[in-house]
Amino acid sequence: MESESGSSVRLKVFNLNCWAIPYISKHRQVRVQHLGDLLNQKNFDLALLQEVWSERDFESLRQKLLPNYTWAHYFRSGFIGSGLCVFSKHPIQEVFQHTYSLNGYPYKIHHGDWFCGKAAGMLVLEICGILVNVYVTHLHAEYNREHDYYLAHRVAQAWELAQFIHHTSRRADMVLLCGDLNSHPGDIGYRLIKEWIGLEDSYLETQDFQGCEDGSTMVPNNCFVNPREMEHFPRGVRIDYILFKAISGFRITCETLTTTTGNISDDATGRSIPLSDHEALMATLAIRPAPIEQNRDSTRDAETQASLMGVLHEAWTEMGLGLAGARQWVYSTGHLFSLGLLLLFLGVGSMLFEEIPWVAEALFMILGAIVLLGSGGLYLTSLHESKALYEAQAEIELAMEMAKEVQPEAVELSSTSSLLRTSIQSESK
Amino acid sequence: MESESGSSVRLKVFNLNCWAIPYISKHRQVRVQHLGDLLNQKNFDLALLQEVWSERDFESLRQKLLPNYTWAHYFRSGFIGSGLCVFSKHPIQEVFQHTYSLNGYPYKIHHGDWFCGKAAGMLVLEICGILVNVYVTHLHAEYNREHDYYLAHRVAQAWELAQFIHHTSRRADMVLLCGDLNSHPGDIGYRLIKEWIGLEDSYLETQDFQGCEDGSTMVPNNCFVNPREMEHFPRGVRIDYILFKAISGFRITCETLTTTTGNISDDATGRSIPLSDHEALMATLAIRPAPIEQNRDSTRDAETQASLMGVLHEAWTEMGLGLAGARQWVYSTGHLFSLGLLLLFLGVGSMLFEEIPWVAEALFMILGAIVLLGSGGLYLTSLHESKALYEAQAEIELAMEMAKEVQPEAVELSSTSSLLRTSIQSESK
Repeated sequence: MESESGSSVRLKVFNLNCWAIPYISKHRQVRVQHLGDLLNQKNFDLALLQEVWSERDFESLRQKLLPNYTWAHYFRSGFIGSGLCVFSKHPIQEVFQHTYSLNGYPYKIHHGDWFCGKAAGMLVLEICGILVNVYVTHLHAEYNREHDYYLAHRVAQAWELAQFIHHTSRRADMVLLCGDLNSHPGDIGYRLIKEWIGLEDSYLETQDFQGCEDGSTMVPNNCFVNPREMEHFPRGVRIDYILFKAISGFRITCETLTTTTGNISDDATGRSIPLSDHEALMATLAIRPAPIEQNRDSTRDAETQASLMGVLHEAWTEMGLGLAGARQWVYSTGHLFSLGLLLLFLGVGSMLFEEIPWVAEALFMILGAIVLLGSGGLYLTSLHESKALYEAQAEIELAMEMAKEVQPEAVELSSTSSLLRTSIQSESK
Repeated sequence: MESESGSSVRLKVFNLNCWAIPYISKHRQVRVQHLGDLLNQKNFDLALLQEVWSERDFESLRQKLLPNYTWAHYFRSGFIGSGLCVFSKHPIQEVFQHTYSLNGYPYKIHHGDWFCGKAAGMLVLEICGILVNVYVTHLHAEYNREHDYYLAHRVAQAWELAQFIHHTSRRADMVLLCGDLNSHPGDIGYRLIKEWIGLEDSYLETQDFQGCEDGSTMVPNNCFVNPREMEHFPRGVRIDYILFKAISGFRITCETLTTTTGNISDDATGRSIPLSDHEALMATLAIRPAPIEQNRDSTRDAETQASLMGVLHEAWTEMGLGLAGARQWVYSTGHLFSLGLLLLFLGVGSMLFEEIPWVAEALFMILGAIVLLGSGGLYLTSLHESKALYEAQAEIELAMEMAKEVQPEAVELSSTSSLLRTSIQSESK
């Protein structure tokens, strides 16, 4: 909270995907140093970071920021960690973490998401008597937008995140969600989170934006960004967000939003280097008391509900596609497992015949063991995937059913909007 | 809700760990049939089940119970499932699931807990205008009470469950937690959940209890219970619970609590067999409006706070012991991994020397690969374990810090009670 004018509270928030992977990310240590300097200099209320994969980096930041940001937390999960951490000027009263059920595949080692415990981190703060629930997250990366193998996983994560916030923020006056959603503003993941919780997007709400064109947070002129990935997006992509919601008795406006635009810091050699391959977001939010709305516009409510129904239906369909794929894998790997068993059996059986060279026997057995282990692992992975997607689908189904009961007229609007969207999508393909 | 007298609402709740493991549990199908009959006959408001491992069993129960229990949900997670499901007379408005970060070890295949996605399932119901948050869970089994390798995992699960309920029930009028906590009433897991949320135990609160001695839910005279496991507990153990809490403006009393006491159903051959190796719990809760307490007894509050601090400290210590063990494993398996690398290197290197038989080379390589795979898996498991325990410890530390700030006098009381407990424990050993 920078200043208080009258009864309004100003909250300065910083968000950055730091791209701080030990041994891999370029100029990591220099960039972490620069980030610390920037945070100390700009004096935010809250700094929410993603991809701080090394706890040493977190510790060095913590030491450096201690005079200005007394409170900090690193969210630990998975094998490597969640990469999520937070620095706060205000006392952190409570911390909780929800690890996502689905997060890629263990055999996609080169992508590595599975090994990180991707999660939603939650903090409870009380700022000038306002109870603020802060959430920080990082959803599964999108490696290939044309053939996005992880879409169902990302949508399931988005749903879990939305549900987690929905259920844990009931007592809060304000919700703040920051992070790298790996979803463009038109993508189902972003829309699902935004509509299910009723969040507002600081980029869309602010009157005073300064930064990259279209509010992009990954831009081609950042020297750490692979230009090939930006081929279809010459103006960059917006995948990092500061989203907020006033729950009751408050109104929030985003007074200013700024992004970094590439080179802002100098390394030891005097060269100018970006803070990360993502751009940082810096928002000033003003929180004012407001009368609780009693008589809301019912037409607007029906439209919102219809739009929500459309989004829920879209997410449900996407998960269904993922589920069908996972079930196919369960089936195929089950067969492969039988093949492995057969090979092992042949290996053992051939020991009864002296004319079969023992090299062949050993080969059968080794091959059998490899196929068994491999298909067993894949079988378990696909089984887990199908359980998690089925659960998410069931939760969404219930949400749709309840929404229908609340406002039956929304269903008709929803089916129309859903049909419209489908026809637009098929036309654009 | 069975009946309404004046302004009170009666809720009839059923809880059972069903022990329904396909191919392993004895008389599984007959018992599931009997369970369905009992639930239809007794007409509960809610039936919460654990260890329904086969979705087919859930489906057959669902079909059977449909006329009386219109709403049902099976919580899907992990490789096998969570085993948790619920049948309800009242519309289930919302469903959410939190899978525990820690749940045993993958190499303990014979214990199998790791393969089930142990979780906390949550339901939101509205019964006669009362918003009820219902939770069902099943914590990690205790295979050896003297040398309980899973204690830290179970305590971490208990903490996650307590946090999950604490954060998701803020809007509810009433919280209901049912399940198999695999913890005796004196164990830290049970006390942590009870004290952090402020739950009441239906067995301790009721004036009208009928059932096994001491409210036990696993008793030696149940023919499915291994008598050797009950050697030290001739009166059985109480590890299944119906816990509740009225959040605001309501008062809940447990009018009756009943447990099954062994043989209650007949199989096809006319023999009498128990419903499960656990006993079922059946509670009637009365919910009445009550004035919101304004002036609470501050001495009692300080005592409660002190007791909570003691419990938090005990849980923190237990997790610390688990953490130290996990870190030792990270260290040892790291060394084993190096050994595997060395063996592989020797295997490849020996190919340069013609005098070394190729069988020896192959042996080195196969052994190297086995050691690498094994130690790699163990390394990842221990790393994950240490991250999860560290996170839980950090959350508890923060909870203790905040509790200290709220009531500093509680700290002194807490250290006294904690010291007392330690001395009692060391005397009893």
